[in-house]
Amino acid sequence: MNQELFTTNNVWMMVCTALVFFMHLGFSLLEIGLTRQKNTINILFKNIFIICAGLLLYYVVGFSLMYPGDFNGFFGFSGIGISLPENGNTLAYADGGYTYFTDFIFQGMFAATAATIVSGAVAERIKLDAFMLFSILYVGLIYPIVGSWKWGGGFLDKLGFYDFAGSTLVHSVGGWAALIAIILLGPRIGKFSTEGKSQVILGHNIPLSTAGVFILWLGWFGFNGGSVLSADPALTSLVLVTTSLAAASGGMGAFIFSRILYKNLDVSMFLNGILGGLVGITAGADVMSPLEAIAIGLVSGIVIVFAVSFIDRLKLDDPVGAVAVHLFCGIWGTLAVGIFGELASWSQFLNQLTGVAIVGGFCCATAWLFIFSIKKSIGIRVPAREEVEGLDQHEHGMSAYNDFNTTNDY
Amino acid sequence: MNQELFTTNNVWMMVCTALVFFMHLGFSLLEIGLTRQKNTINILFKNIFIICAGLLLYYVVGFSLMYPGDFNGFFGFSGIGISLPENGNTLAYADGGYTYFTDFIFQGMFAATAATIVSGAVAERIKLDAFMLFSILYVGLIYPIVGSWKWGGGFLDKLGFYDFAGSTLVHSVGGWAALIAIILLGPRIGKFSTEGKSQVILGHNIPLSTAGVFILWLGWFGFNGGSVLSADPALTSLVLVTTSLAAASGGMGAFIFSRILYKNLDVSMFLNGILGGLVGITAGADVMSPLEAIAIGLVSGIVIVFAVSFIDRLKLDDPVGAVAVHLFCGIWGTLAVGIFGELASWSQFLNQLTGVAIVGGFCCATAWLFIFSIKKSIGIRVPAREEVEGLDQHEHGMSAYNDFNTTNDY
Amino acid sequence: MNQELFTTNNVWMMVCTALVFFMHLGFSLLEIGLTRQKNTINILFKNIFIICAGLLLYYVVGFSLMYPGDFNGFFGFSGIGISLPENGNTLAYADGGYTYFTDFIFQGMFAATAATIVSGAVAERIKLDAFMLFSILYVGLIYPIVGSWKWGGGFLDKLGFYDFAGSTLVHSVGGWAALIAIILLGPRIGKFSTEGKSQVILGHNIPLSTAGVFILWLGWFGFNGGSVLSADPALTSLVLVTTSLAAASGGMGAFIFSRILYKNLDVSMFLNGILGGLVGITAGADVMSPLEAIAIGLVSGIVIVFAVSFIDRLKLDDPVGAVAVHLFCGIWGTLAVGIFGELASWSQFLNQLTGVAIVGGFCCATAWLFIFSIKKSIGIRVPAREEVEGLDQHEHGMSAYNDFNTTNDY
Repeated sequence: MNQELFTTNNVWMMVCTALVFFMHLGFSLLEIGLTRQKNTINILFKNIFIICAGLLLYYVVGFSLMYPGDFNGFFGFSGIGISLPENGNTLAYADGGYTYFTDFIFQGMFAATAATIVSGAVAERIKLDAFMLFSILYVGLIYPIVGSWKWGGGFLDKLGFYDFAGSTLVHSVGGWAALIAIILLGPRIGKFSTEGKSQVILGHNIPLSTAGVFILWLGWFGFNGGSVLSADPALTSLVLVTTSLAAASGGMGAFIFSRILYKNLDVSMFLNGILGGLVGITAGADVMSPLEAIAIGLVSGIVIVFAVSFIDRLKLDDPVGAVAVHLFCGIWGTLAVGIFGELASWSQFLNQLTGVAIVGGFCCATAWLFIFSIKKSIGIRVPAREEVEGLDQHEHGMSAYNDFNTTNDY
Repeated sequence: MNQELFTTNNVWMMVCTALVFFMHLGFSLLEIGLTRQKNTINILFKNIFIICAGLLLYYVVGFSLMYPGDFNGFFGFSGIGISLPENGNTLAYADGGYTYFTDFIFQGMFAATAATIVSGAVAERIKLDAFMLFSILYVGLIYPIVGSWKWGGGFLDKLGFYDFAGSTLVHSVGGWAALIAIILLGPRIGKFSTEGKSQVILGHNIPLSTAGVFILWLGWFGFNGGSVLSADPALTSLVLVTTSLAAASGGMGAFIFSRILYKNLDVSMFLNGILGGLVGITAGADVMSPLEAIAIGLVSGIVIVFAVSFIDRLKLDDPVGAVAVHLFCGIWGTLAVGIFGELASWSQFLNQLTGVAIVGGFCCATAWLFIFSIKKSIGIRVPAREEVEGLDQHEHGMSAYNDFNTTNDY
Repeated sequence: MNQELFTTNNVWMMVCTALVFFMHLGFSLLEIGLTRQKNTINILFKNIFIICAGLLLYYVVGFSLMYPGDFNGFFGFSGIGISLPENGNTLAYADGGYTYFTDFIFQGMFAATAATIVSGAVAERIKLDAFMLFSILYVGLIYPIVGSWKWGGGFLDKLGFYDFAGSTLVHSVGGWAALIAIILLGPRIGKFSTEGKSQVILGHNIPLSTAGVFILWLGWFGFNGGSVLSADPALTSLVLVTTSLAAASGGMGAFIFSRILYKNLDVSMFLNGILGGLVGITAGADVMSPLEAIAIGLVSGIVIVFAVSFIDRLKLDDPVGAVAVHLFCGIWGTLAVGIFGELASWSQFLNQLTGVAIVGGFCCATAWLFIFSIKKSIGIRVPAREEVEGLDQHEHGMSAYNDFNTTNDY
């Protein structure tokens, strides 16, 4: 390692940081496109809030909670704010992989993702203040604490649990909270008929959802590529290959499988299949062969088709399929590290299962505690009239597409 | 060459890979914006399919067809799938320019482009299954075989044909197929009046088309910049300059020329002029001076204006101008290598002409064979009623902008 | 410095170039989203024109005006066009930071920004030809002349004025012209009632505006990150941190402050707060600590809320808030270099104030001269009927969303 490689590594990590930042636009567009026009401003507001508040929270407490240095393995905190250590701009900081500030900003872009996942699931009926409060608590405390268990060198790391870029530590952390939230929040008015039959509530802007998925796929080049934590040519290039092949096979898996099952050509299933493949490969993107990546993606695509229908049958309402994508494929991807690739073994599989269970238990408990407390205090659900007429009108006093007219008289 | 430069080269190639990937969003948005609302889901579906299937096909057969190693110069195949050669992560693989996996994924992102070009030309009337079948054959077989002739070291390469980043090998390969397809497919209902007069069919979302062109321009930083096949400072920075100046002058050429000719300020002509400039510079982006790049772009812009009108007069219907942009400017750009720049000479011009003719002949023949066979078997055109009412409703059972309302009552 | 670091530096600068280019899409989407549907094509046309004409002008005269080499410090010109100096591809050109061509293209992407800022302020009522003429003069002459005073090594540089990435040299240069333009142009019909009361004219596509802001934030990674003029790990990573934290706190500042003041949850104020934070940190992104960046951003957010209301009270009409964002926060950010960070001192503050005043005086004078001359010759404002019916119909003969229908009968 030398200054030349250090500089190149740091450039790669900064590029990846930019790409992960861009994922927040991807999530925003995906979510507004799959929901109804009347709630668009509200959803954009939530997403803008998350990235702004998330970065600031990560500055204030998150980074110090997630990477506390030497700690008991369960909970550590190295102090408010960030400050450049003496070696923060040298090869000594992280073996020449990146500087202290790159470390902070790359990890900071990850942090807000967990709450963004929840945002999609609770869309169209949650109170804005309730969502903002929950996001602050979850992104500021839960995400970094869970992260410290593995990426901060805590007890899950010592146990042998493996999660390369966060199938569990990012996606399932968000997915569990999304699941708890939609249980406590209840379905949107009209989602289930009085006989309990599920109704399709179509999104209002599929082109923007599609753009969102392409942007997310692009962002995953940074999400997984940057998780190599250097520009190591062998690992980074393998990771881009496994990531993209899993995305492609995830999409094809969901498309073909839902075509066989339902005889339709549903573009939103195709899109969620791509995301499922991306989430699925995330835990082991650096230890899979291209062919194994295709297999993991393909299974992810099939998992999506089943999970969407399963959640529906449970009478849960997840407008964008966040639980299917981030929780189900997050669990699948984490377990897949014990089944496929360099680390595959029965004991590794058990380690993975243990990690999934522990993180799941902790996230469900804390998410339930937070959301239930908010429900009992300020309330989490908008009044029925507001939900029917749209959150944009009631909470924001504006429309996303004001003045849009279709009189093509010229 | 050393490990430091190898790492930097590989970072640049991965960045370029990400940018070329992003072009698929650019193509998608350009195409839906320039077509009618009722076919939006269908077009998105095709484009999502192309990138997913294209990458997987390139994994299964494409890469091995395009870079078969030592071969007879016409057709070679080094086996199903990809597998890391022993030197695949070392400087020995490609003179330290990139790793084996970066090679695969960069080239893989290129591969799907050819079918994407066709997608725009056949929009609003092709059967989805027919399009998917054709794409698989064309991207899986024809694109890599033609590519092997030059980039794989085949007979066109030995002949002295020059095509830096694919004015012919990518854009014309797509453009010829687009031409054959719209001949065999026929124009959209209503495109030509009963007296044979061409009717304007306006696109439904010009902002998204504009976004698509900006994204394509951005992606071309990677398309041409990555075709240097290393981060060589002199060549990569020249290529970014020639690429952007040609785009700018292509746009200005089309804008000014169409304003003079038609007295209008047509934004879609401006946009296609930019794309024409980009396609035009692609064959020689590394051998032109900035001023020559501006000249090539300017001519491309003028070519666009004439070509759009010419195709119209032939009673061919190309909803997005794909043939004008990718075929006409692709040919122009390839020939321009014999006229301008470092390689300019009469013999080079003849080499370029030969390459254009051979690739054109092969692509037309195979595209005709495939599309004609599909036409005679499963059919290529949707029923008239489906075309009139929209493919979204009939093939996908959904609308791209469901629930979009314009009652601005708040 | 050696070839390895030179190559890495150049890669970083090319990545930043691509990101700054992408900002032009960000500006385009922001502007169309915050204005009315009937003027969308016109606004897109202006923005496409600016990037194309801007790059070509920077090739013809801009680069030579801005970096004339040895000159009197006020005005220099090193000749028409660009041509590679003998050392242009070597470490000698810029201490190994980048090549000559990268220098040109990075700076060229900046140049068009100034006119883009004006575009937003004058939207929905300016004559297209008047705008194009003004842009050519302002981007071709004024921007590079002012730039030469500091970045070209001119008198402002010798005076000790500091402007890292252009709070003044880019954003205020655009902002002053925007201010002069909206004074000379007058408000849109209907913006102020006959009693002089300001009316809200809502934008027609807030999702695209939001996408624009995310893209601008992304682009700022390159705008500020590239202004380090090398890939120096310490400086570049600090700059990404200060830039993103200021964006986040700018957004939060505007959101919280406007909520307290107006009791609303206005998403466009949130978005402009982010942009304000970005503009504010631009002058000193490399000399601030993370905490100081947060402070600068926070003040920027508050400045936005006041400035928008102040401009309104002056009976000036700035549809997108360009003056508030680029001028007010540009001034604030420039002065902040004298208040916070490594350079903070009373004398630095006076230097900053001097720079702001001189640039402001020159820009106001020249912008007034240009716009007033255009007003008196070809006119700057479209006829009232055209303004009411929309510029798209009258100047372009087309609609941005032709054929958009909302009959969800399927």
